[in-house]
Amino acid sequence: MEKIIITIGREFGSGGHEIGKKLAKELGIAFYDGALIEKAAENMGVHKEYIRFNEEKAPELSMSSFFSGFDSFHTSPFEKIQNEEFNIIREIAEKESCVIVGRAADYILRDETHVSIFTFAPIEARMERIRTRTDKYEKFVEDDLSEVDLLKLIKAKDKQRRKFYEFYTENKWGDRDNYDLLINTDRTGIEGAIEIIKTYINESRGKNLVND
Amino acid sequence: MEKIIITIGREFGSGGHEIGKKLAKELGIAFYDGALIEKAAENMGVHKEYIRFNEEKAPELSMSSFFSGFDSFHTSPFEKIQNEEFNIIREIAEKESCVIVGRAADYILRDETHVSIFTFAPIEARMERIRTRTDKYEKFVEDDLSEVDLLKLIKAKDKQRRKFYEFYTENKWGDRDNYDLLINTDRTGIEGAIEIIKTYINESRGKNLVND
Repeated sequence: MEKIIITIGREFGSGGHEIGKKLAKELGIAFYDGALIEKAAENMGVHKEYIRFNEEKAPELSMSSFFSGFDSFHTSPFEKIQNEEFNIIREIAEKESCVIVGRAADYILRDETHVSIFTFAPIEARMERIRTRTDKYEKFVEDDLSEVDLLKLIKAKDKQRRKFYEFYTENKWGDRDNYDLLINTDRTGIEGAIEIIKTYINESRGKNLVND
Repeated sequence: MEKIIITIGREFGSGGHEIGKKLAKELGIAFYDGALIEKAAENMGVHKEYIRFNEEKAPELSMSSFFSGFDSFHTSPFEKIQNEEFNIIREIAEKESCVIVGRAADYILRDETHVSIFTFAPIEARMERIRTRTDKYEKFVEDDLSEVDLLKLIKAKDKQRRKFYEFYTENKWGDRDNYDLLINTDRTGIEGAIEIIKTYINESRGKNLVND
């Protein structure tokens, strides 16, 4: 059977998680977000340090400075954890067709055939989406958050994702060159973005898109 | 009738011109590139200084320094030309549904309802496209250009477009925030990119996309 791997990077509140989940369902393939990757890691018997990666946070400076002191001819503990983390994503992608949200998966799978998506939207549209969202994935957002605090939260989450991505890769988060398709979800909404991605896939079939 | 305006920014060799021309034909709306905007400007009786704008080049530093010496309380000759140039694009968009390629049209029309597209592709794909292109718009590319000279040409053209865009706007050329959809045309080709744009338009209907 043809295998297809789709990675989705996303600005916080742009709907990338919901798009990925629904797209996977429509295509009848597996879906992986942070929680589900963690579960897969447990099944693979990966040790607990991995949890930091799952949080999609770059290590604190003190930690990376500490590890950078290690003999550069040997693999540092930090690099070991990083390799393990990367291997989980690679094993998932090896195993089955799937959609993977976040976790720098586009970079980790850069040498594998895959479709790399990035979703974004103007800040006002993202505030509105978080306020009215039906997908409660972003459950840590309190319903009674003020406008100012919501704006702060969005910026903090984007910063965290950017730092994570740029710590683990040599690329810039959200930079067009890392992706096949960047969608402003403001007008398209969730369903529209899914149709656009499906059109991309259909139009690109036979062009080094799927593995037999 | 519904009016729709589509602007296309593009990396050199990514196929944006051909995509725009064929998309306009399929939608049955007008198409404007540099040459056609120049023609429209002639019909509007715009003076000859405009030609520089048409070349999609930022003014030479010496020229802009010269003009920056003018009394800032009055409109400098340079600003006059710039305003005239911007007005041509605005008049075209006011008049009819159309696709406009390049000329910072996305920025000039930022307060008008329009669909803003950007096409890009890896450098190898663009070199290949220029070598094998059927659309001879980029006719100044000699067929016997060496690989090195073709690479130089692509980089020089991109630089020229970026400088033009960033001279006339406060935005970064190709930065996702300026666009609704950014398409890597490597896998999609011309026809695939057109289908993706049409899907975007269909999925976004009723969402502040078209003017009645």
